[in-house]
Amino acid sequence: MFSITPLDHSPTDSIQAKIDGKTKPPGSLGALEDLAQQLALVLGDPIEIMQPTMLLFAGDHGVADEGVSIAPSEVTQLMVQNFIGGGAAINCFSKQLGWDLKVIDAGIKTPLVGVTNNDQYREQRVGPGTRNIAHEAAMSLEQAQQCLELGATCAREHLAAGANVIACGEMGIANSTAAAAIAVQLLGCSAADATGRGTGITDDQLDNKIRIIEAACKRSSDRDPLHVLQQVGGFEIGQMTGAMLATAEAGAIVVVDGFIATAAALLAQRIAPSSRDFMVFAHCSHERGHRLMLDALNAKSLLDLQLRLGEGTGAALALPLLQSAAAFYNHMASLDAAQIELP
Amino acid sequence: MFSITPLDHSPTDSIQAKIDGKTKPPGSLGALEDLAQQLALVLGDPIEIMQPTMLLFAGDHGVADEGVSIAPSEVTQLMVQNFIGGGAAINCFSKQLGWDLKVIDAGIKTPLVGVTNNDQYREQRVGPGTRNIAHEAAMSLEQAQQCLELGATCAREHLAAGANVIACGEMGIANSTAAAAIAVQLLGCSAADATGRGTGITDDQLDNKIRIIEAACKRSSDRDPLHVLQQVGGFEIGQMTGAMLATAEAGAIVVVDGFIATAAALLAQRIAPSSRDFMVFAHCSHERGHRLMLDALNAKSLLDLQLRLGEGTGAALALPLLQSAAAFYNHMASLDAAQIELP
Repeated sequence: MFSITPLDHSPTDSIQAKIDGKTKPPGSLGALEDLAQQLALVLGDPIEIMQPTMLLFAGDHGVADEGVSIAPSEVTQLMVQNFIGGGAAINCFSKQLGWDLKVIDAGIKTPLVGVTNNDQYREQRVGPGTRNIAHEAAMSLEQAQQCLELGATCAREHLAAGANVIACGEMGIANSTAAAAIAVQLLGCSAADATGRGTGITDDQLDNKIRIIEAACKRSSDRDPLHVLQQVGGFEIGQMTGAMLATAEAGAIVVVDGFIATAAALLAQRIAPSSRDFMVFAHCSHERGHRLMLDALNAKSLLDLQLRLGEGTGAALALPLLQSAAAFYNHMASLDAAQIELP
Repeated sequence: MFSITPLDHSPTDSIQAKIDGKTKPPGSLGALEDLAQQLALVLGDPIEIMQPTMLLFAGDHGVADEGVSIAPSEVTQLMVQNFIGGGAAINCFSKQLGWDLKVIDAGIKTPLVGVTNNDQYREQRVGPGTRNIAHEAAMSLEQAQQCLELGATCAREHLAAGANVIACGEMGIANSTAAAAIAVQLLGCSAADATGRGTGITDDQLDNKIRIIEAACKRSSDRDPLHVLQQVGGFEIGQMTGAMLATAEAGAIVVVDGFIATAAALLAQRIAPSSRDFMVFAHCSHERGHRLMLDALNAKSLLDLQLRLGEGTGAALALPLLQSAAAFYNHMASLDAAQIELP
C-alpha cells in the first residue's frame, strides 16, 4: 500500500562537513545541527521548506462513554466548529507561524451540518466514532485500511500541490486512551506505564482509564500494527498514520506532534520502518507513555513546553526551528570564508 | 542610575481568567500560558510585540591569555566582522525570525578599521578588552559604571524608536570564564560548580579554568553587583546588564539568552530586583553554572536545544514562542463564545 524509498544516508558525511565548517565551534548549535542534517538528507541542499501544511484530523471514541476524559464526545464536534471558525489555539499558531491548516473530519460522532469540503476543511468519515474498546474492537479491519487510505489521499493532495513539510495534529475526546492502548500493544509495556491524565483527569478516573486499557489490550496479543489500529485505535489516529506514510513515501518531512500523534507515528514506523527517517518529533508531552514511544522510535523531541492540548500545537511551534535550521545550513558563512581557525 | 517601576501584578487574576476562559482545558498550553501571563502584565492587553531587537555586545577578556577557551581573542574581532557581514548564526536566525540585529563593540581587543556607526553597528568601547582576572581586577569601578551607562543608552535608543522586546546576546572569547566567576561571586557557589566547558575545552583546560576562577574570586568577598562586575566581569557583560536594566525601566520585555547573558541578568537583578519581572529566559545551556543562576533568579527557560554558541542565538529562537503566546492570548476564542463547557 505504501512504497517508501529508504532515505539515502550517503550524503551524511558531506552534510556534516558543511555544518562543521560553519563559523561556530563544532556541535555548538546542538539539536539544530541534527535537525539540519536530517532536513538536508530528506529535502536536499539547499534546504527549502515549502508550504508547510498542518493536517488536523478529528475523530470520536466510543470509550469516551466510560468517563476516561474530562469532557464528553460532543466537545469534539464543538472544537471542529471552533477550528473552522478560526478560534482555537492551532488556528492562532498556524496563522502566526505560517502553516496552511486543514481540518479533517475523520469520523466524529456527529458530522457538521451545512459545511462543504473546501481548502480548509474536508469530510472523510470512517464512521460516527469508533466502538467502545471497553467492550469490543474499535473498528473493523476494513475501516483500519480505509483510515490509512483516506489519510494518505489527503496528504498526497497537499504534497502534489507543493508542500514538503506535513504535520499531523488531532482532536478527539478520549483519544489519549486509544494512544495509550496502542503503546501497550506495540511496546508490550504495562497500561499503568503507558497511561496518563490526558487533559486532566482525577486519580480515580486515571485508575479507571488504566483498567479499561488493560482489558482492551487483553483481547488480542497480535502486535501487527494494522491489527492494533483495528483493536484499540481511532479514525483520526489511523488517518494520521496514513498521512505520515504518504508523506514519507513522497520524500517529504513529517512533523509529529505530541502523545497521540506519536502513537500514529509508531504505527507508521511498524508498518514501514523506513518512514522513521522522515519524521521530526516536535514536542514531548508529560503524558507518561509518550517518552516510552519516543524511546522506541529512537527519537528526541525538540520542545518541552508542558503542552497537553493536541491539535498539532506542539508541531506548529516547532516550525520556526526547522526554518532556522535551514537558514543556518543554507546561509551561514564558513570558517574558511571568514578566515577563522578553530582547533 | 535606574528607576524601575515595580511591575503591577494586580491584573494577574483577570489575565489568568482570560487565559482559563479560552477553548482549551485549563493549563493545557503549559509554559506558553505563563509566558502570556507575563507578557500581558508587562505589555498590556492585547499583547503587541513591536520591533523585537537583538543587541549583540562583543568584548574581549584578558583572561583568554590563560588558555581558558578553545580560541584566541583575535576570534572575537573576526566574529564581529562576520556579524557585520551577515554570515554568523545570529544573522541567519535574526533574518529568519524577524529580529532587528545591532552589533555593539563594547570593548574588543582590536577595534574594527573603517567601519562607522550605523543602524546595524555601534562602537562604544570601554577599553581594549578587560585586564586578566588571573592577576588583577577586570576593570576599574569607573569602567563598570560606564558599561551600565553605555548599554543602557543603546537600549534606550531602540526603546524610544518603538521596540518593546529587547534581547541581549554576546560574543567574547573567554567570557564563560567571566560569567562563571560572576556566578561564584553572586551565589557563593564553588568554582567547580559554576564552571563548564564553554565552547568545548578539554579536562585539563577545565581544571585550569576552575583554578583561575577560584583565584580571581578570592581577591574579594564583596558581593555588591557593581563590585563583582568590576572584579571579574566583562565589558560586553556589563553593557548587557545596562541594556537589561534600561529595558525594564522602560516597561519592556528583556529576552535573556544563555549562560553569559544570564550572568548579566543576575547582575541586573542584584542591582534592581524589580528588573526580574521583565525578563523572559529563553534557553538553558548545558553550562553547569547556568542552572544555578536560573534557580537563583527563580526562572525556567523556554528552550533546551543544547546550544552553546552564545551570540543571542537561544534568545532569537524564542521569539516565535513569545509571538505565539501573544497570538493565543489575543485571538483565541473563549469557551463561552464556542458554547463549550469543561469541568
